[in-house]
Amino acid sequence: MKTLTVDLGSRSYPIYIGKNLLTNGSLLSPHIASKQVLIVSNDTVAPIYLDTLLTTLEGYLCHSVVLQDGEQYKSLETLNQIFDSALSNRLNRQLTIIALGGGVIGDMAGFAASCYQRGVNFIQIPTTLLSQVDSSVGGKTAVNHPLGKNMIGAFYQPQCVLVDTRTLDTLPERELSAGLAEVIKYGVIRDTEFFDWLEKNMDALLQRDNDALSYAIEVSCRNKAEIVEQDERENGIRALLNLGHTFGHAIETSCGYGVWLHGEAVGAGMCMAADLSYQLGWLAREDKGRIIALIDKAKLPISPPGSMSAAQFMDLMAVDKKVEDGKLRLVLLKALGDAVTTANFDKNIFNQFLDECCSA
Amino acid sequence: MKTLTVDLGSRSYPIYIGKNLLTNGSLLSPHIASKQVLIVSNDTVAPIYLDTLLTTLEGYLCHSVVLQDGEQYKSLETLNQIFDSALSNRLNRQLTIIALGGGVIGDMAGFAASCYQRGVNFIQIPTTLLSQVDSSVGGKTAVNHPLGKNMIGAFYQPQCVLVDTRTLDTLPERELSAGLAEVIKYGVIRDTEFFDWLEKNMDALLQRDNDALSYAIEVSCRNKAEIVEQDERENGIRALLNLGHTFGHAIETSCGYGVWLHGEAVGAGMCMAADLSYQLGWLAREDKGRIIALIDKAKLPISPPGSMSAAQFMDLMAVDKKVEDGKLRLVLLKALGDAVTTANFDKNIFNQFLDECCSA
Repeated sequence: MKTLTVDLGSRSYPIYIGKNLLTNGSLLSPHIASKQVLIVSNDTVAPIYLDTLLTTLEGYLCHSVVLQDGEQYKSLETLNQIFDSALSNRLNRQLTIIALGGGVIGDMAGFAASCYQRGVNFIQIPTTLLSQVDSSVGGKTAVNHPLGKNMIGAFYQPQCVLVDTRTLDTLPERELSAGLAEVIKYGVIRDTEFFDWLEKNMDALLQRDNDALSYAIEVSCRNKAEIVEQDERENGIRALLNLGHTFGHAIETSCGYGVWLHGEAVGAGMCMAADLSYQLGWLAREDKGRIIALIDKAKLPISPPGSMSAAQFMDLMAVDKKVEDGKLRLVLLKALGDAVTTANFDKNIFNQFLDECCSA
Repeated sequence: MKTLTVDLGSRSYPIYIGKNLLTNGSLLSPHIASKQVLIVSNDTVAPIYLDTLLTTLEGYLCHSVVLQDGEQYKSLETLNQIFDSALSNRLNRQLTIIALGGGVIGDMAGFAASCYQRGVNFIQIPTTLLSQVDSSVGGKTAVNHPLGKNMIGAFYQPQCVLVDTRTLDTLPERELSAGLAEVIKYGVIRDTEFFDWLEKNMDALLQRDNDALSYAIEVSCRNKAEIVEQDERENGIRALLNLGHTFGHAIETSCGYGVWLHGEAVGAGMCMAADLSYQLGWLAREDKGRIIALIDKAKLPISPPGSMSAAQFMDLMAVDKKVEDGKLRLVLLKALGDAVTTANFDKNIFNQFLDECCSA
């Protein structure tokens, strides 16, 4: 087992990464506030792993709420099911909420923990690659609004993150690829050594080689932790983690939440960001090629859905959280491993780029 | 004008108290992050004060959302109207949300500010006595759930609180009395000098003497600030501010939100707390008498609604945020000016007391 630490002063917490950790109650118990536990999961993950977790947590008063699986249920209405369950079971402020599932479950359980009785303990047990390498670490929680993704939420750090790599055995192929999008992201924005490693080991990752996956999770979490430690509330450098996300969120919102997986939209979005960076004259043609090839190799889409127009992109990106004073800010690449958040890019080239993307 | 400061390190903020402050734009502008402003008000307050505030904020891009007035609308559904407005107007993370109204508006606008795009600037302009002396200060925000009051929310401090005492001119009498409940509370839990002053000046307050009201607001806010500075997230002493609230919340939830005003329920709840403290042998008969007499003089109810049973009280109080390890904790009085939060009280006396209250 590997243990990483996210160092945030009084809000610091460990990330445990290893095989079969789901059966290791001694890792969880120091982070549980009282006997009361509410496990939040979904109808895909709960049938596979809920009983195991309940056995691990023997001795606690465990309740569970099983939500419908999918990004389309990441809403205020579904969030209310968590509150209904907590209140009808008389759970109090000493409650610990445990997220057992992917990014959607982590985001909703975390946001629920942040506002149930104005804040209760929270533990992340991510069961998808995407949530293990990205969303479970760093304290971003949210639900979607019909007019924009992740628009309602909180920065709320968990007490710990427990990554059981065995849960990847049951992950659908499409979800594995979606997770690889965020893994690739760390290589692209700041870790060229890792990018090189990914080029060499993509096949092993797709074949679910446990050593390769464990290493990729560890390096990803370490990159994420280093960024979050410097900028917990995203006033600066943390925005770089959104490479491909502004385009990606527009795709997800436009297609309807859940039609494209988040990682798929981010994959296409990163290709768009790389291509735009190239057209702006910032990124070398070769590096653009390597980025798109790696995303393609991970079995991810490399261009937006044919149904989207340039006008739709502009419209949906206008509510992005990085918009400042009416100016769209994008994460773009100066080189492989060197990302910037900027509103200073040629708008003519940008408009032409969007038109080309959407007519292709 | 008086300026008090709530000293919370990087989250410190001023409370401005005075006449006609609503027309003083220079007080507000240092606390507004960008040109974007969203004013949240209700259909009682907006027709009287919204235009004045809009004139004061000339030069800003002001949007407003007017909610239905009343505690029964302090819900997740109503909260969503704020998000709808913010998103359909493309308001971004540099937005400042201003609450213009009473406690319900402050609680909802503040909670919306805490979670819109994971947190935007927030200003409190309380227009009722209750919100001026209590709910606008200290950063507690929340909405209700059908199973419990204030169960979903956040600790989120405003950038400033602006109290225009002229707004009390238009306050209905019942709301004035409701506000006095929280004013009296400070005297009862920690400020006997203020309690003496209130006994002497209750008539002036009820007649809306501006000097008396300004003084009462200032002393109340100072008491509140001192407590919040010591215990922002209510791990200890801040719980004393809930004198009468555990009984009061049960009354509000039982009658249906909005039937009893919050301050009315707190008034009756404080009488219950004083009576129970007396029956436990902790509070002198004379002090109990003075407390109930002052609450009565403020034209507040001094006993719970006849419709409530002891079983109903027990049931509703079981989800109170102060419950720990299944034990009900109450704010009780050792003496006038000396309150404690405790689960150590004789349960037989407590049960007998509840039975008597509810059969009276």
